[in-house]
Amino acid sequence: MILSGFRNTKLFIDAANRISSYVHHTPLLTCETIDRMCGCEIVFKCEHLQKAGAFKSRGAANAVFSLIESGFQGAVATHSSGNHAQALSRVALYAGIKAHVVMPENSLTSKINATRDYLAQITFCTPTLEARETTLASVMAETGAVEIHPYDNRDIIAGQATCAMEILNEIQPDFILAPVGGGGLLSGTALAAAHFGNHVQVIGAEPAGANDAWQSFKAGYLIPSVNPNTIADGLLTSLGQLNFPVIQQHVQDILLAGEREIIDAMRLLWERVKIMAEPSSAVPLAVVKANPDIFHNKKVCIIISGGNADLDHLPWTKE
Amino acid sequence: MILSGFRNTKLFIDAANRISSYVHHTPLLTCETIDRMCGCEIVFKCEHLQKAGAFKSRGAANAVFSLIESGFQGAVATHSSGNHAQALSRVALYAGIKAHVVMPENSLTSKINATRDYLAQITFCTPTLEARETTLASVMAETGAVEIHPYDNRDIIAGQATCAMEILNEIQPDFILAPVGGGGLLSGTALAAAHFGNHVQVIGAEPAGANDAWQSFKAGYLIPSVNPNTIADGLLTSLGQLNFPVIQQHVQDILLAGEREIIDAMRLLWERVKIMAEPSSAVPLAVVKANPDIFHNKKVCIIISGGNADLDHLPWTKE
Repeated sequence: MILSGFRNTKLFIDAANRISSYVHHTPLLTCETIDRMCGCEIVFKCEHLQKAGAFKSRGAANAVFSLIESGFQGAVATHSSGNHAQALSRVALYAGIKAHVVMPENSLTSKINATRDYLAQITFCTPTLEARETTLASVMAETGAVEIHPYDNRDIIAGQATCAMEILNEIQPDFILAPVGGGGLLSGTALAAAHFGNHVQVIGAEPAGANDAWQSFKAGYLIPSVNPNTIADGLLTSLGQLNFPVIQQHVQDILLAGEREIIDAMRLLWERVKIMAEPSSAVPLAVVKANPDIFHNKKVCIIISGGNADLDHLPWTKE
Repeated sequence: MILSGFRNTKLFIDAANRISSYVHHTPLLTCETIDRMCGCEIVFKCEHLQKAGAFKSRGAANAVFSLIESGFQGAVATHSSGNHAQALSRVALYAGIKAHVVMPENSLTSKINATRDYLAQITFCTPTLEARETTLASVMAETGAVEIHPYDNRDIIAGQATCAMEILNEIQPDFILAPVGGGGLLSGTALAAAHFGNHVQVIGAEPAGANDAWQSFKAGYLIPSVNPNTIADGLLTSLGQLNFPVIQQHVQDILLAGEREIIDAMRLLWERVKIMAEPSSAVPLAVVKANPDIFHNKKVCIIISGGNADLDHLPWTKE
């Protein structure tokens, strides 16, 4: 039985139709060398080739255009140092509304520039969660902008689900693996599998250094992220309130990967598959390599969630 | 009138059918930011996602399986420090024949490993053209292997033409741009346009530091490459005997790009399009950016020839 609030298939079909002009239908890629190495058949879903370089464009498009359809003409706002900021700014530009983005002042120049290219109004703050939240609150109070949360939002989840809907429309894998940070992509993927899959198992892949989703999943209640430490900078956030019950009910398991394994998997994706995965996107491959027994001879689809890596500081470059 | 020796459309149709099980039909990608920047509509043909990471797999597959069809059961050989070595070794493995590859002893470890992964027999030599040729000659004398030249070979040219055939089957661009080194890809592209194109102009893109094709094209006779110096290591070779007349007759123009322009275009491809272009593959985009008058408001297809960049020494990394 699909979790209440997400039971209506129409929620997902509508999302797919709503965003189709604003996002790419991304390609699937395979690589003989990786298959030999892992002992299974892997298909990569290339969301690094998505608009603004990450799956986040899907959720942002669904959330913004849902608002527009309901007659909304105001501004939207979020705090983000990364892919959600770019995705939301880009979509707001297309929708003809203003986007306010609170960014920590230590954000990467490339991410600041990309967000600025989409004409977002950027407000900088000190790089703590508290500063981000209070700055966002004051920006919203001043401008009347509506917050679009990066993952703890039903329209965002339905938007992220469209990625797995595309996968399941083209192939029938035994497993789909997605990285888990706040849980937007993982919960969307699990719901897509529940609605449109044929016995496909959805597995979350999380860095051992930021394992709050794994802890919460095992404990059965939400345990927030405390001092997470991982190169996978997209996965530092705590699991969302709305995302956790979906994951509990519809995700088969969450598996962990160490930092060395994540970097090795990232290098393998770059060198052999020519996929410019950002560190977060390498976590599922690291998990598959570390668990040959689970995936042996299976058809495994890995979602490459984004490609916005810091080209000036690649993890294998000697400084 | 199409150049003698390449007039029969069947040569190309046969090549496409022959290689279809051994190579990828590669995707086309677009990027709004690059289009805005260049003032034209650019479509990228992603041969960096081709098997073995470059278009070279097409020609190698056509040459090897043409031999196999004619009853050949011997070994094949070539000298190459780069993509042709990997492509030929991979295809030979599939054809069940042995590949002998002469590699300069200063070849990148990643390229040596990839060639070795495909079970090729590698012979190292000092890194001069003379040593490569004499070593290859002695390997061929010892083993009876047949040379598969990387570009100066009719089956290789017909194989490389299949890339533009895929393009022209999906879109109708005003221009197709391909980088030019030995001229295998450019001559194949020009022949595909002549046979299957609808008024599409084919343009070669060459580094100013290795401009023998440009010189030859302007002079009307073959001028060999002397002391070429460019980061685009795939384009150091001299234009082939068989390739030059095709280029003279069927290529609209050859345009040059400077080193700084090539590095900037490469970074742009990585950062904004998430295409892991090797330096040679960035030359066409550099040419488009440097010639806005020619390409303004046109539909331009750029062939990203390969993605085997040296991840330990990216051109923008401070050493």
